[in-house]
Amino acid sequence: MRAITLDSNQDSRLLLAEVQTRNLQPGEVRVMIKAAALNHRDEWCRKGLYPNIQDGVVLGSDGAGIVTEIGEGVAYDWLQKEVIINPALNWGENQKVQSSSFEILGIPRNGTLADSVIVPVDRLYDKPAHMTWEEAGALPLAGLTAFRALTYQGEIQAGENLLVTGFGGGVAQFAVQFGMALGANVSTSSSSPAKLERAKAIGVSKTFNYLDHNWITKALEETNGFDLIIDGAVGDTLNHLIQVAKPGGKIVFYGATLGNPNKIEARKIFWNQLKIMGTTMGSDLDFKNMISLVCEKKIQPIIDQVFKFDQAEEAFDRMRDGMQTGKIVLVP
Amino acid sequence: MRAITLDSNQDSRLLLAEVQTRNLQPGEVRVMIKAAALNHRDEWCRKGLYPNIQDGVVLGSDGAGIVTEIGEGVAYDWLQKEVIINPALNWGENQKVQSSSFEILGIPRNGTLADSVIVPVDRLYDKPAHMTWEEAGALPLAGLTAFRALTYQGEIQAGENLLVTGFGGGVAQFAVQFGMALGANVSTSSSSPAKLERAKAIGVSKTFNYLDHNWITKALEETNGFDLIIDGAVGDTLNHLIQVAKPGGKIVFYGATLGNPNKIEARKIFWNQLKIMGTTMGSDLDFKNMISLVCEKKIQPIIDQVFKFDQAEEAFDRMRDGMQTGKIVLVP
Repeated sequence: MRAITLDSNQDSRLLLAEVQTRNLQPGEVRVMIKAAALNHRDEWCRKGLYPNIQDGVVLGSDGAGIVTEIGEGVAYDWLQKEVIINPALNWGENQKVQSSSFEILGIPRNGTLADSVIVPVDRLYDKPAHMTWEEAGALPLAGLTAFRALTYQGEIQAGENLLVTGFGGGVAQFAVQFGMALGANVSTSSSSPAKLERAKAIGVSKTFNYLDHNWITKALEETNGFDLIIDGAVGDTLNHLIQVAKPGGKIVFYGATLGNPNKIEARKIFWNQLKIMGTTMGSDLDFKNMISLVCEKKIQPIIDQVFKFDQAEEAFDRMRDGMQTGKIVLVP
Repeated sequence: MRAITLDSNQDSRLLLAEVQTRNLQPGEVRVMIKAAALNHRDEWCRKGLYPNIQDGVVLGSDGAGIVTEIGEGVAYDWLQKEVIINPALNWGENQKVQSSSFEILGIPRNGTLADSVIVPVDRLYDKPAHMTWEEAGALPLAGLTAFRALTYQGEIQAGENLLVTGFGGGVAQFAVQFGMALGANVSTSSSSPAKLERAKAIGVSKTFNYLDHNWITKALEETNGFDLIIDGAVGDTLNHLIQVAKPGGKIVFYGATLGNPNKIEARKIFWNQLKIMGTTMGSDLDFKNMISLVCEKKIQPIIDQVFKFDQAEEAFDRMRDGMQTGKIVLVP
């Protein structure tokens, strides 16, 4: 089969290669990929920033497709099913945190940027009927991360003020969409006026350009502060978020693209009784609940652009440069 | 009446003075103080580190005594009652956080380091029958802070691993005692071998001297990490706490005697799904629940030393220098 693999000999570090597939183990299925999507994790893998990365591995965590082969012990009715794949493997039984054997699909095991992928059958969920293949392939990792951040960690309630920073990124777009579906008053921020326009177009009530030196004052005036903030940047902007949080509010971050903060205002955190919480992916229960919400509210992922496998370099570069609004999809 | 007041003309900034008392407003009571206790807040007030501090104000948040006079609208059976005082005024209805009119007894209004204090009757609770006056006077502020940190914020469960940093301080001692009463496996840390001995004597299972360069490794080996950490120091030691927290664990801090942290390990927080939470004092419900626990389990506050009012400077200096194990009590 064809697959987008890591190859440190290439300038792009990517190679669309012919890869030998393997036989199924008991409990596994083979899914023919109809659409896959990129996450920042794929870019970090391309850059070699993950441990134990080896040339030849197939990248990709997000995918949707059709079950074409089933291993021993898998019920026959899975065959030919249209499915999406939960890329979180071995989370374990503890809802609070993943187990030590937790693994994300795509490095170290072969991922979804291929004609087909092998996964345990318990990673499969019915493809939401209202979604195109591209939309279904775009949902899993970022959707799961956003859903857990908002619900299990953030405990968002209808009528609360939600700020999602960095609109444009995958997790941020889902956090905005899920937040609206759950009845929150959703605001979002970005440095890009075009992305903020796009946010307004999908129904976000308030948008803030964080390059505007006045955005914190404006946000406080217009919203009276946020009950919940979902962020993936951290760095020194964490103190800005501490300022716009309502007393008693929560800041949940799922990544730290700006690195560690150099200082945080401890007094403001304890006096305002703020909670600063980290989150990663989500449990099987989180995934199941996300699918329920998505189907009930007919939520459609925002697709930035669809690329063919032989355009992988262009697709990866677009994500690296933060040009996208919504998910970057790759189809075989 | 005699009272310990702030006086910036004194070297000690304290003056045991004759202070005129005022008439009661409707709903207020006068409590004759049998015992009062010091908190770090009093020392910060002495240093002038609180806003709107004026000479002549009576210091003190903690107190217990006997109701000697009642204002209009207060039921007669309060007269002569033995009470402890909840020093948290106007918390409001939101369990998450205090209202903007929240106030702590003792600056700006006159506090408990006096022959008597005037408070609204709804701040009174029956003095726990198993406590001496000194113990009852030592409980309120630090007990309330520790109880909320452990329960409402920390959601401590029986069998969980709890670390309380800085044994010796008032909040820390109560967090240790309440943690044991709630069935947690309690560890504590200090830089003082004598304080750690004292902790062992009251039943703390594991103690760590944080001057020991190896304490993090030892704590992880001996406990497998902490589900909950209660801290009042923050500063750069926050990263040590992040290291000894169990994945999915919580760090709750009620103060920041070491100031702001210069850097925090964002990646460890989101990958391990940690929660870093600030807390301050507690709601009326927290106070009521604390009293229930204290009475049910017959918990006795640890008293460091009892001073007379005319030894106030010595008492304040002992707290400033961190010499105490347990509460420093003052009696009229």
